Amino acid sequence: MIKIALIGYGNLGKACERIAESSGGFEVVGIFTRRNPTELKSPFGTPVYRQDDIFDFKDQIDVACICTGSKSDITELAKKLAVHFNTIDSFDTHVRIPEYFAQMDEIARANEKLSFISIGWDPGLFSLMRALFSGILPNGSGYTFWGRGVSQGHSEALRHIEGVKLAKQYTVPKPEAIERARRGERGLTERDMHLRECYIVCEDGADKEKIRQEIVNMPAYFAPYDTTVNFISEEEFKREHGGMPHAGFVLRKGLVSDFGCNLEFSLKLESNPDFTAAVLLAYSKALVKMYEKGERGCKTVLDVPISELLSESEAEAVKKFV
Amino acid sequence: MIKIALIGYGNLGKACERIAESSGGFEVVGIFTRRNPTELKSPFGTPVYRQDDIFDFKDQIDVACICTGSKSDITELAKKLAVHFNTIDSFDTHVRIPEYFAQMDEIARANEKLSFISIGWDPGLFSLMRALFSGILPNGSGYTFWGRGVSQGHSEALRHIEGVKLAKQYTVPKPEAIERARRGERGLTERDMHLRECYIVCEDGADKEKIRQEIVNMPAYFAPYDTTVNFISEEEFKREHGGMPHAGFVLRKGLVSDFGCNLEFSLKLESNPDFTAAVLLAYSKALVKMYEKGERGCKTVLDVPISELLSESEAEAVKKFV
Repeated sequence: MIKIALIGYGNLGKACERIAESSGGFEVVGIFTRRNPTELKSPFGTPVYRQDDIFDFKDQIDVACICTGSKSDITELAKKLAVHFNTIDSFDTHVRIPEYFAQMDEIARANEKLSFISIGWDPGLFSLMRALFSGILPNGSGYTFWGRGVSQGHSEALRHIEGVKLAKQYTVPKPEAIERARRGERGLTERDMHLRECYIVCEDGADKEKIRQEIVNMPAYFAPYDTTVNFISEEEFKREHGGMPHAGFVLRKGLVSDFGCNLEFSLKLESNPDFTAAVLLAYSKALVKMYEKGERGCKTVLDVPISELLSESEAEAVKKFV
Repeated sequence: MIKIALIGYGNLGKACERIAESSGGFEVVGIFTRRNPTELKSPFGTPVYRQDDIFDFKDQIDVACICTGSKSDITELAKKLAVHFNTIDSFDTHVRIPEYFAQMDEIARANEKLSFISIGWDPGLFSLMRALFSGILPNGSGYTFWGRGVSQGHSEALRHIEGVKLAKQYTVPKPEAIERARRGERGLTERDMHLRECYIVCEDGADKEKIRQEIVNMPAYFAPYDTTVNFISEEEFKREHGGMPHAGFVLRKGLVSDFGCNLEFSLKLESNPDFTAAVLLAYSKALVKMYEKGERGCKTVLDVPISELLSESEAEAVKKFV
């Protein structure tokens, strides 16, 4: 039994708990929250503690699973936790990952711990595929497409606009861009590759044209893309846009001795947080095995042999999968 | 520079040489053949030796790359080579892999060597995906589809029929089976999943109906499938069926907390042997790194972290791929 602590109890933490409870092999030692613990109740009866109480659980936790929503929180929290615990997280601000990796590696090594960072699907499985495809086909061009699915960051940005009551943003890959990428065309831009579809429920009396302008001109989030804005009723919103589906794929077109090779990995998810939680827990098992073998420091998906994710013995795995 | 020996000089060995010569990082020490060495000439000027001469090159070879065509040869040869060399091969008789793995592991460990077996795309990358998908989504169902592409084994079987002059067999996945697999249906049969398309050039005066009957009733190869037989002219055969393209994909539909997840990996290759060679050489680099780190015994794709395939430093790889 792998003893895990869940730090944070939003969509991701709750999904981790559900999977850990249903899949066997895990004991959820506790939920550690920044909220008032008496206000949270686990459907599985998992005890709920204040976040800082986790430091009373040294030696009782195999992996601290960092599921907090706020991105800036993850790195600061993880650096404190990695002094005393093995940690795993799905930190996803790509541009900050190299610095975070170096910091965590230093802390975990100094304290004889093992930390896995940026474990999910992107970063995570998609990172693994980008590296694998590039390793096999160094002479080629690769792209990552996201969607059709809900971008939580972009939906959040919409909700900050005055007059917006509810909002969801779908990232949509453009079929013609996918075909160009498969042919090996280089230099596709962000606007070439993705559309952004917004579904908005306004506050009563809001100025829709003003909201539309504010959205399509928002730097970084929407201005560099073709963006559509759809105003809908609250009823339609709740009926059609309640879920958190996502999808995406990684592709690479390469040449080997002048022969074309296309590699693609795709996923399609009814629930983004539940799948991310499944990846986190699968890699938590690997973390414990690798820690027991003496691995220390910070690792990403690139460093973890797939055999470590499996519950099968080596001989069984060879027979079943190879 | 990684010093490789090529054992065998058919399609795969020649492709390995081309890639090694063009990609840099490899020195091809020699081609070792069962044929008369004076009858072979490398376009790159690689020296050609008799197969057994390789034992004069102990300590001069980092990896012996086994590229012989005959499947029964690979295992016997590899077991002799693993006593003195690190070896890599693409042995692909799935049912015999577990026994071969155990034998190679024992020999390589006893002799302080490292051997990678069954490295290619299936077994190989497809094995990796089957294991990864199953590790992330244990509650689900997975399938491997092959094609549309040339099956060398089935083409060979056709050429053994009396009256057949030239033959190619394409394995074709059925679109409706792919949809059923994506929906998570279990129990799809071989006949459900693939068609077999045969293109035949007959000897003059051959009995076509007799050939057709012999093909569609051939046990294991064609009887369990829907098989089409097309008789064509030698001219059309050479114009349309000269290449060795292949394709295929691995998919898994799983459930995480009642939410559906679909994972797919696909590849499409203009030249099957050239891509297999690219995979062999990428994993040869990993083999040398892992040997230098002290790894011994027999490994498959499941045991090799993707980071080992990369020429980037750890920090560069995290920045570029994660």
